[in-house]
Amino acid sequence: MTEPRPLRVVGRSVPRLDGREKVLGRTRYASDLELPGMLVGKILRSPYPHARIVSVDVSRAERLPGVHAVIHAGNVVQRPFGYGLDNLPLKAEKVRCVGDEVAAVAAESEDAALAALDAIEVVYEPLEAVYDPFEALRDGAVQVHDERPEVDHNVSMRWDYEHGDLAEMERRSAVIVEGTYSSPLSAPASIETHVCTAAFDADGHLTVWTGVHMAFMYRKAIADALGLDWKRITVVQPPIGGSFGGKIDIDPIDLITVLLARASGRPVKVWFSREEEFTGSRVRQPMHIRLRTGADAEGNLLFREADIVSDNGAYNAWGSHALLVVMQTISSLYRVPAVRMRSRVVYTNKMYGGSVRGFGNPEATFAVESQTEEIAEALGIDPIELRLRNANRPGEVTPQGMRITSCGLAECLETVRRRSGWEGRRGRLRGARRGLGAACFLHVGGGARIYPSDGCGTIARIDEAGGVTVISGATELGQGSETVLAMITAEELGVPLSAVTVRQADTEVKPWDVGAHASRTTFVAGNSARLAAAELRRKLLETAAEVLEAAPEDLELVDGVVSVRGVPERSIPYEKVARRRLLRQGGDTLIATAFYAPPTEPQGPGYLGNISAAYGFGAHVAEVEVDVETGLVTVLGLWTAHDVGRAINPAGVEGQILGGAVMGLGLALTEELRLTPEGGLMLPSPREYGMLTARGVPPITVDLVETVDPEGPFGAKGVGEAGLIPVAAAVANAVADAVGIRPRSYPLAPWKVLEWIRRGERSRVVRRQGPPGRARTGPGAPPARTERLA
Amino acid sequence: MTEPRPLRVVGRSVPRLDGREKVLGRTRYASDLELPGMLVGKILRSPYPHARIVSVDVSRAERLPGVHAVIHAGNVVQRPFGYGLDNLPLKAEKVRCVGDEVAAVAAESEDAALAALDAIEVVYEPLEAVYDPFEALRDGAVQVHDERPEVDHNVSMRWDYEHGDLAEMERRSAVIVEGTYSSPLSAPASIETHVCTAAFDADGHLTVWTGVHMAFMYRKAIADALGLDWKRITVVQPPIGGSFGGKIDIDPIDLITVLLARASGRPVKVWFSREEEFTGSRVRQPMHIRLRTGADAEGNLLFREADIVSDNGAYNAWGSHALLVVMQTISSLYRVPAVRMRSRVVYTNKMYGGSVRGFGNPEATFAVESQTEEIAEALGIDPIELRLRNANRPGEVTPQGMRITSCGLAECLETVRRRSGWEGRRGRLRGARRGLGAACFLHVGGGARIYPSDGCGTIARIDEAGGVTVISGATELGQGSETVLAMITAEELGVPLSAVTVRQADTEVKPWDVGAHASRTTFVAGNSARLAAAELRRKLLETAAEVLEAAPEDLELVDGVVSVRGVPERSIPYEKVARRRLLRQGGDTLIATAFYAPPTEPQGPGYLGNISAAYGFGAHVAEVEVDVETGLVTVLGLWTAHDVGRAINPAGVEGQILGGAVMGLGLALTEELRLTPEGGLMLPSPREYGMLTARGVPPITVDLVETVDPEGPFGAKGVGEAGLIPVAAAVANAVADAVGIRPRSYPLAPWKVLEWIRRGERSRVVRRQGPPGRARTGPGAPPARTERLA
Repeated sequence: MTEPRPLRVVGRSVPRLDGREKVLGRTRYASDLELPGMLVGKILRSPYPHARIVSVDVSRAERLPGVHAVIHAGNVVQRPFGYGLDNLPLKAEKVRCVGDEVAAVAAESEDAALAALDAIEVVYEPLEAVYDPFEALRDGAVQVHDERPEVDHNVSMRWDYEHGDLAEMERRSAVIVEGTYSSPLSAPASIETHVCTAAFDADGHLTVWTGVHMAFMYRKAIADALGLDWKRITVVQPPIGGSFGGKIDIDPIDLITVLLARASGRPVKVWFSREEEFTGSRVRQPMHIRLRTGADAEGNLLFREADIVSDNGAYNAWGSHALLVVMQTISSLYRVPAVRMRSRVVYTNKMYGGSVRGFGNPEATFAVESQTEEIAEALGIDPIELRLRNANRPGEVTPQGMRITSCGLAECLETVRRRSGWEGRRGRLRGARRGLGAACFLHVGGGARIYPSDGCGTIARIDEAGGVTVISGATELGQGSETVLAMITAEELGVPLSAVTVRQADTEVKPWDVGAHASRTTFVAGNSARLAAAELRRKLLETAAEVLEAAPEDLELVDGVVSVRGVPERSIPYEKVARRRLLRQGGDTLIATAFYAPPTEPQGPGYLGNISAAYGFGAHVAEVEVDVETGLVTVLGLWTAHDVGRAINPAGVEGQILGGAVMGLGLALTEELRLTPEGGLMLPSPREYGMLTARGVPPITVDLVETVDPEGPFGAKGVGEAGLIPVAAAVANAVADAVGIRPRSYPLAPWKVLEWIRRGERSRVVRRQGPPGRARTGPGAPPARTERLA
Repeated sequence: MTEPRPLRVVGRSVPRLDGREKVLGRTRYASDLELPGMLVGKILRSPYPHARIVSVDVSRAERLPGVHAVIHAGNVVQRPFGYGLDNLPLKAEKVRCVGDEVAAVAAESEDAALAALDAIEVVYEPLEAVYDPFEALRDGAVQVHDERPEVDHNVSMRWDYEHGDLAEMERRSAVIVEGTYSSPLSAPASIETHVCTAAFDADGHLTVWTGVHMAFMYRKAIADALGLDWKRITVVQPPIGGSFGGKIDIDPIDLITVLLARASGRPVKVWFSREEEFTGSRVRQPMHIRLRTGADAEGNLLFREADIVSDNGAYNAWGSHALLVVMQTISSLYRVPAVRMRSRVVYTNKMYGGSVRGFGNPEATFAVESQTEEIAEALGIDPIELRLRNANRPGEVTPQGMRITSCGLAECLETVRRRSGWEGRRGRLRGARRGLGAACFLHVGGGARIYPSDGCGTIARIDEAGGVTVISGATELGQGSETVLAMITAEELGVPLSAVTVRQADTEVKPWDVGAHASRTTFVAGNSARLAAAELRRKLLETAAEVLEAAPEDLELVDGVVSVRGVPERSIPYEKVARRRLLRQGGDTLIATAFYAPPTEPQGPGYLGNISAAYGFGAHVAEVEVDVETGLVTVLGLWTAHDVGRAINPAGVEGQILGGAVMGLGLALTEELRLTPEGGLMLPSPREYGMLTARGVPPITVDLVETVDPEGPFGAKGVGEAGLIPVAAAVANAVADAVGIRPRSYPLAPWKVLEWIRRGERSRVVRRQGPPGRARTGPGAPPARTERLA
């Protein structure tokens, strides 16, 4: 955008700009909002996984003191929402999972609201429920959405993809492994629970304060679901106390809060207790990936064939679309000449899937990278060596049309191999029941074109004091994006970072942005901020040129001082330039706007198209110890190397990767929402859910590989989800190395590990010999891994 | 800016967009702000008009429970502020008026804060005080600022101006009248008192919430007075509950609030009680204008000579500059070939002058327009006829260099003459002790270049829903500017008014603006909004042209629909165009920024230069009845006609003029801050102060004269202060018509009127004959007005 110059801000670690306020407890989150006359809203939820709502009687509740509104499907105007319009804010005919919203109240206190909830009388007619997606697929199974005749056998969506000549590649394969890899029902489990406040002003303009991070889409969703004019809705995003995807989009809580505000004529705040956060929020839906992978004798991958059942739960929220991401990993992680993926999104009477960090990729990577090591094992090739042989490379276009520009996958692999001591230790620690496992990933790192625009707007200005304000469409949700955007702006402008403030605004002020998802903020909002900063810089130099009587192109702007190149004494501080521009005849302000949309393509019917302007890659190696008496898997270390393009704020990038890795360890080892036989949540608490605490975190090494992406801002690529993705696979592979079993589901709960050890659960190698004339492997393939554990 | 098209929004009266919220009591003003941990601040004020501060002991106050900070000049870092740097937030050596700030506390409750105030021990050494500016001018008078040796005889400033050959014009005059015209100490008296809240965040960034309406200047003033980095200060302007100039700029309350926040480490809110609002705020300082006016026998004005003493009070705040406006009226209201003005700003030990609506002009107009009628009387010419003869005309450049472009003064005069029944009634109601009086005014109506920039910036956008957001540098302070800016935007864009929202923002977000003063907002911010809207329109049509496959210049955009001119079926709603522009490959947002600075000149040393891009004019006629037994003056009617250029929102303009007129009636009849002999305020309450209530308001007629100013937005000129300016003069002239006395000060309190009647106070005509050869007047001049009252 401007002439290359040495970086002075980008690449130097700084503390988060919003850190001190947060650490000192002074940040005011959505839950801190108080409005005059505000009421407390509470939601009545179904105790049944599947039932007909026979009647809802709110008359007693309405008469209770302090109660201003009691709403249910019978007394509000609402429209279906969700993919396939299969959901209602307040359920009308049926409930389809435990926790389904049936009624809600707004009252002057929490006690009054809870008393009113108790006074609502709902008569249900319980129906048979189905929890298992494979049951749900059977003939004669309970139909979760019998009002949707187009949904056959509870299959609401299919995501099918194919490339290459699979039959031929299968024929050519020297080795084929197969298995079914399963992931659990899990939760984003952010520390801040969902909180939504809604208020209509005297003119009927609605303002909603909530932790959503796709504010513009959310606004439209509210309008669509409640029949409101979206021009007359403002969405305010207070600082968000974590989301991990859980707050990405519209949820019944949001719509119910607005309905309560409308019914009561008062501002209403609804917040989730910790328990409700588990029962009333979206989940990471379980996936069952039946995968076959074939390779030739040299370890070149030849095909993958996947059949996937996504146990979607009761309604189609974002989770129904996670298979898009699963598809990318199956089609494009490593070069695979032939791929076939069939998948079904299946309704069950359970909590339903949203968007959780990684969004299908941890699940896909668990399957793919487990089989990568199984193939390596079957071929007797070192798994990292095999990966290097198949690794994606810069300049590749994957069969799905993903244009891989920068790619440091091989360097990442080499880094973790070196860091972990892989060569001397892998396969040699089994005596100590310890082992090393690796896993790589590919993930979008330059946006994800899932909507007609993947863009982000920026308004940036320099005021007469020299203060630089950046108003971005982007959303800070705890990931550190404000700091990154400030650094990019400071770098591009040539001013000190301390001069830059990134302001979180609302939908009435901030420029459009599709939202924070798909690890896109640094890349997309960063590029947008950089464009705006470049325009500000151009204007600054234009005015400085008049003052310094030089051509703009002869000026440099470094650390806030504009000077004539080579004549440092002819200089002027940038803030004086701003004042000179403003405070004169025919003056002008320094304001710039920019919109950046990545040069990507929406994927067509065949899922072809370059969905992202850059792709992130990385490799993890985990070291575990397995207690074969108890089944306890202890992760002793995790080495991670990520191709981040460029680390704008290295400390922030490391934090993101570390945070992701810790979340990944939780998924790998402990996190699971366990259900009762009646479809309810067994123990809705963070402890029982299995969230790791600091004590559960092993030493983790983060290495950053900077490939300087040609399109990314200063070369950066997105990294928000990355740290999480390959962890479960690496840990499972390490367990395989340690004790010779093949985990095919996570979390690696002790009871499961014990069972696998007891059963001698192993890799299922369905072919060991290549086709005629291609036999390097075959009978001589290493048998070591088939021996039984003592 | 664009092709002329019929106006569809501008010129049609609409209710204020912020009206319903305000009427329903739902608007959240500065006083409604609550922050976590916020403390209550209170200020300890001097009971003495002039005293040396011997000692301040805060030790007992500091130990009281709930007290977090007790500050005084001895324990804070502060710098002088004000013109001549003659003021300190907390006074150090001396106090110079009753109410001077000596110490302040921040405590957890108002009670605790008041208890702490009581516990502060200040020892004063009282000094002789001077209240009368003429006393202050005498040799040997008390020196209010003896620390300023450059201040001689308490004169801190002089504003002297001259044009033409005064001696020659005096020689030519057929008639000369003279007198001294005085105005009282009065108050802006907004319903909302001053409230300031300040908080430092964890990083030391200061945010101040206050009703200031020159937010950027205020920010700088805080930084300068307290030694802070202005880049790290954000000024937030909650909705303002009236100001009338009282909240225009920095005051000790603001600086003390920040000092308390700094000392306590907590957010602090300081608010004024109603009493403190009178004693602790800036006032309209009294002026004493000795004026001589001469005219030839035909009634052509020939000269004015003015000697003005501005009774400025203890410090130089904005009020010290009101003589700039006095000068404009004296030099330029009507064509006057020779003018000499000498004036002195004099310190006294009293409350000190700020900026109050009209800012010197009511005072000047009272003097000038009283004498205009005295001249007419002396010449036997009808006063309106005489005014018409001398009225400013379009195309004139006044001797001060004010370029009068649009000017409807004559039309205004003719309108009020007709409306009031002047011709049949004026001079004929004396039997009933009733009379009619007129007065005109000239006031800046296109900004006022008192700072290097008189500009205003705008950011405007159209979002994907079709919502139009305008972020203006301007300040809504109750005058209805949000509505006007929304209308201008809607008109220029061609969209419905309901689509437009004007957002009040803070100094970190809103573009620069010099502030709301000098009736400039509609003109300057309006032009800025119009420029931004024109740019949005251009972008809209650019995209619509692609969609409709037509040239942009062949398109029209009316009521939100873009269509091919003459082919209405080829059309598209503008919000769809916004979405088409955004949601596509290479999309873009619809955001525009603009900066408008009027093409004006700062006035040089001789006060020459076109300070405003347009000038407003108007004429009032008042009808009064005088009770000669009690001295009570009752205004029976007021007819007003104002050249407003163009009424953007006629109801709003009428409201402004009506409100100004009512304020003017208060000044004319009742409003005065009366002091005790010890320099304190006698009765600091709205009732005793004499604010009119609705019951005191006579029928007022407002006629709008639309001259369609060439530079104003859709022809509009500023009108914020206008309604007030000529009222006192018109009322005084009506009293003269009713009972033959000549009022020379206001308010026209009954005791004064009785005294004037008793004394037979009359016009002082110092010459009645013109120079040789020019005698139409002379002995034959009408004697009627010199008869004594019965």
